[in-house]
Amino acid sequence: MLMLWKKLVVSCLASGFLRSNLKRRPNLAISSKLLFCNKSKMAGALEEKSCNKMFGGLQKVFTHESSECKCKMNFGVFIPPQAESEKCPVLYYLSGLTCTEQNFVTKAGAQRVAAELGIIIVAPDTSPRGCNIEGEEDNWDFGTGAGFYVDATTEKWKNNYRMYSYVTKELPNLVNANFPTLPDNVGIFGHSMGGHGALISALKNPGMYRSVSAFAPICNPVNCPWGDKAFSGYLGSDRETWKSYDACELVKSYSGPPLEFLIDQGKADNFYTVKQLLPENFVKACGQGRVPVVLRMQEDYDHSYYFIATFMEEHIRHHAKILKA
Amino acid sequence: MLMLWKKLVVSCLASGFLRSNLKRRPNLAISSKLLFCNKSKMAGALEEKSCNKMFGGLQKVFTHESSECKCKMNFGVFIPPQAESEKCPVLYYLSGLTCTEQNFVTKAGAQRVAAELGIIIVAPDTSPRGCNIEGEEDNWDFGTGAGFYVDATTEKWKNNYRMYSYVTKELPNLVNANFPTLPDNVGIFGHSMGGHGALISALKNPGMYRSVSAFAPICNPVNCPWGDKAFSGYLGSDRETWKSYDACELVKSYSGPPLEFLIDQGKADNFYTVKQLLPENFVKACGQGRVPVVLRMQEDYDHSYYFIATFMEEHIRHHAKILKA
Repeated sequence: MLMLWKKLVVSCLASGFLRSNLKRRPNLAISSKLLFCNKSKMAGALEEKSCNKMFGGLQKVFTHESSECKCKMNFGVFIPPQAESEKCPVLYYLSGLTCTEQNFVTKAGAQRVAAELGIIIVAPDTSPRGCNIEGEEDNWDFGTGAGFYVDATTEKWKNNYRMYSYVTKELPNLVNANFPTLPDNVGIFGHSMGGHGALISALKNPGMYRSVSAFAPICNPVNCPWGDKAFSGYLGSDRETWKSYDACELVKSYSGPPLEFLIDQGKADNFYTVKQLLPENFVKACGQGRVPVVLRMQEDYDHSYYFIATFMEEHIRHHAKILKA
Repeated sequence: MLMLWKKLVVSCLASGFLRSNLKRRPNLAISSKLLFCNKSKMAGALEEKSCNKMFGGLQKVFTHESSECKCKMNFGVFIPPQAESEKCPVLYYLSGLTCTEQNFVTKAGAQRVAAELGIIIVAPDTSPRGCNIEGEEDNWDFGTGAGFYVDATTEKWKNNYRMYSYVTKELPNLVNANFPTLPDNVGIFGHSMGGHGALISALKNPGMYRSVSAFAPICNPVNCPWGDKAFSGYLGSDRETWKSYDACELVKSYSGPPLEFLIDQGKADNFYTVKQLLPENFVKACGQGRVPVVLRMQEDYDHSYYFIATFMEEHIRHHAKILKA
């Protein structure tokens, strides 16, 4: 067995091994600053909080002073190995209630597929934090961790809770200034409250996002308890103003470039059962707006990241097909 | 666009969709008790704490009264869809310092590959908890979260800290009694302290584990600070007794059925740099014992789950190749 032992010892030959064996990761050369972990400040005052090599690329988390939210905001960004030598499409992922940028980064299993397909994925936090607004920590579905991707208009929240402008304007500007993006090849997806965020961001900005999908999105917030609570808090009592952040309302009159919505919904999702999500309303509204939508009802799946991780690959391939066409 | 919309709406047809489109998941029929989420008690007093559908199978967490540890112990088990209709190989994953059963379950990205290959994966907690031993919570690398997969002999710890017997005897008996396993087709792997656990479990039980691998394992605990601290605490001051839990010592005289060790080690792993892991010592000892080993030094990878997730698929395929041969 000695000869077998000698033959099998492959020590300190990792990059050669990877290059020859992992055919789906074509470019593993780590030669420039971009794909190194460094703690230096970048353009736009991005400060690197963490950096870990993963699937030949880098998973980083940055923090920065947000002009929209007037507080420090964190976001994760996965930089695929292809970004070393070429500009890449960008896919924004918006998380759900109570999440930070970490949930997606650690649990969604997206990086493997993003590394294969050469897509940058950006995952922001879900709300401003630590703004010293009275009551901001009192609820799990309002305030901290629950920005709902709207620009608040009520007196108490309007100074900081501007997640809509943050994710559709400030963050893309920062990302395009700091990473080798293709700014015209941008997609957006998300989960639950973040699925709502993805749908409305695409519908309110025709042409900005070429691809869109969602996991168990809140499709019709003006008609569900979560939306009632959040929109009355952030937008006030005039329900008419709420409609500008409701995917069902927005899609009825959508007239921008073609969008194809892909939605996965678990049939064992408690929030689906109690009508917080209402995907059927969105399918109906898409019909009125003549916008294509695929709603896949997934038997026995729930609202968790186990569900998200299961269908993540298919969602990223859905985006890649459009973004790389 | 109306016709396109109608053509694309696929509502409430999930299982049909899955069966025809996800070719790598051959059996998605969920028909018996095994692949349902239920909170009933099972044989051996296993109590289900959580159950989530994932990749066509189920990720469950159980708790039970451990006779070895004399406290409640948790473990995760992923049941692949194939387990519905056939017995499956079992792969045990041992986690590292500070981990519970949750780290592997949520961060390692193993379920996708296990679902494809039809492998049950069992991931236990890393130590007894809440045993009211004075000082058990004082250190992150000793006591709670740091069982080191040994059977303690010192007075203070010997009653509860029996992780070696727990993972190699009590847990396999429970698993074989409750799940459709092939008890002769068993592999073991792990990370860091759990990599040490995997190596010694395989070496001390010739024939019990047919396949073995590790991510950044503590290879030579009798020669590193972590091992010094843990083994003197659990096993006392006679360093001679420590050798029976040291992979480098054990492999020199291994004479059981053939084992091929696969080890991945990040070159940017801080614990590697400060000589807590010492994989080169294991390669050398394998040479003395004439046991085959593959050590892959991975450029720029660290000690985190980002590293583990990156190479998880290749490890599971390494095990499957042997377990399904």
